[in-house]
Amino acid sequence: MQIGVIGLGKMGLNLALNLTDHNHQVIGYDKQAEIEESGFNRAASIKELVEALEAPRTIWLMVPAGQVTESVIEELKTLLEEGDSIIDGGNSNYKDTVRRAAELQEQGLFFFDCGTSGGTEGARHGICSMIGGDAEKFKDIEPLFQDISVEGGYLYTGKSGSGHFLKMVHNGIEYGMMQSIAEGFEILNKSEFDFDYENVAGVWNNGSIIRSYLMGLTQNAFSKDEKLEGIRGVMNSSGEGKWTVETALDLNVPAPVITLSLMMRYRSLEDDTFTGKVVAALRNEFGGHAVEKK
Amino acid sequence: MQIGVIGLGKMGLNLALNLTDHNHQVIGYDKQAEIEESGFNRAASIKELVEALEAPRTIWLMVPAGQVTESVIEELKTLLEEGDSIIDGGNSNYKDTVRRAAELQEQGLFFFDCGTSGGTEGARHGICSMIGGDAEKFKDIEPLFQDISVEGGYLYTGKSGSGHFLKMVHNGIEYGMMQSIAEGFEILNKSEFDFDYENVAGVWNNGSIIRSYLMGLTQNAFSKDEKLEGIRGVMNSSGEGKWTVETALDLNVPAPVITLSLMMRYRSLEDDTFTGKVVAALRNEFGGHAVEKK
Repeated sequence: MQIGVIGLGKMGLNLALNLTDHNHQVIGYDKQAEIEESGFNRAASIKELVEALEAPRTIWLMVPAGQVTESVIEELKTLLEEGDSIIDGGNSNYKDTVRRAAELQEQGLFFFDCGTSGGTEGARHGICSMIGGDAEKFKDIEPLFQDISVEGGYLYTGKSGSGHFLKMVHNGIEYGMMQSIAEGFEILNKSEFDFDYENVAGVWNNGSIIRSYLMGLTQNAFSKDEKLEGIRGVMNSSGEGKWTVETALDLNVPAPVITLSLMMRYRSLEDDTFTGKVVAALRNEFGGHAVEKK
Repeated sequence: MQIGVIGLGKMGLNLALNLTDHNHQVIGYDKQAEIEESGFNRAASIKELVEALEAPRTIWLMVPAGQVTESVIEELKTLLEEGDSIIDGGNSNYKDTVRRAAELQEQGLFFFDCGTSGGTEGARHGICSMIGGDAEKFKDIEPLFQDISVEGGYLYTGKSGSGHFLKMVHNGIEYGMMQSIAEGFEILNKSEFDFDYENVAGVWNNGSIIRSYLMGLTQNAFSKDEKLEGIRGVMNSSGEGKWTVETALDLNVPAPVITLSLMMRYRSLEDDTFTGKVVAALRNEFGGHAVEKK
């Protein structure tokens, strides 16, 4: 197929190369002109990209969620024709996706939300993709997902928003799994025993119940720095975990472990906490317990 | 090697068969005389088993942790000779293991604690094992672990207790991973979308960041009962998660997600809670909010 790819960052570039490997004719565009050579054609603008594609067009967005995605879609709205399709492969909030799909449908455009997992390595050699949107039209673009995903690694998930919803929950689960693995290693680290963490992650990744891609990454990390002494335990997050918790709240679903994993990330961003000061002050008030002076 | 296996339940029997497959000469014993045919020799008593083995003996225990393990070891103490080895393959508390190793060492006996993961399927075809005990003597029994474990699936973990400690923490991590996966599916289940959970677990297990043995088991479970309507959400536990939390408390380690996973298991055992009654009563006291009468 012929396909336009907008956004040639870490994920988009690898995805475009993956598509090229599978004999799809890629035309790429990125607002930054200077990116490494890639083996597929480039357009100098979104307008040029749209003009270079034959109708009905398929355009894959791999740009940051939020304002960037919004403005690229707004521009595409003025350029595309009835029957064209946009695939949003980024981590957009599913509520934005539901709104955008409705707006684009009014113009006769198809909008697919594709939750994409697997990291840059996956984008290059085989992703996991979860796609929401029009069921009939999906059949036309299904070969793309078949080609760029690992075996068994794509799923049509239903109406618009379902793909991004599923990716969001995937990331929420990821937060909990990562926090659980990490707490386990913290217990080992404070224990009376002298474990080699790389070997521990290695043995746990071979035959145990907790073997997983994440445990493999844990092993990799310890192989580079055996006690992670070179980094700080600051746990950033990029939105999907928060949205998962917000969604759990909207749906009145108890999801304490995913929620607490997110809260522990927030905690890690603070060197000291106001909570801590309040509790220390209260212990001092009622029991005369010592406080640490700043 | 020649090896005695005491305890031929689900795990012990499969382990004995696994050892037999690898040309080890197994002599088995189980207090229940009636168990299925197995292809290895049986002893009628622990005494007979010990007498049938040539010194220095190696005896693998696969019996329930706690009192059963304690009494089998007490009996073995009266029968074994200096230089013999006992391997405890069960989920014993590592503190018991440290005590037992010291007691057995006084008698000139070697004691190895082997944390074993992988379930009955693993016991039969390849386990993950974490072994603590005497480093020198371990070399003599290392071939056993090499043979019955999956590739890369055994680790000598250090002094006595370290193997069971590592298995305990493994199980704690497992609690958190399971709870996180399960909360994700609960959010899907309450959402506006109509997901096929077997397919979701399937696609998440192919190429995504959360792909894991547990996600494969999740897919299996949904393949048998697409919305798990045939079972109740009662989450039992068998001790290792609790010990992990107790250990975190002993070591002053914050392990909130593992702890909360355990608490959610306890919550699941109650149809109603006293906590719930107290909170409902208090809302009624201060705000006149309605309570549900029993």
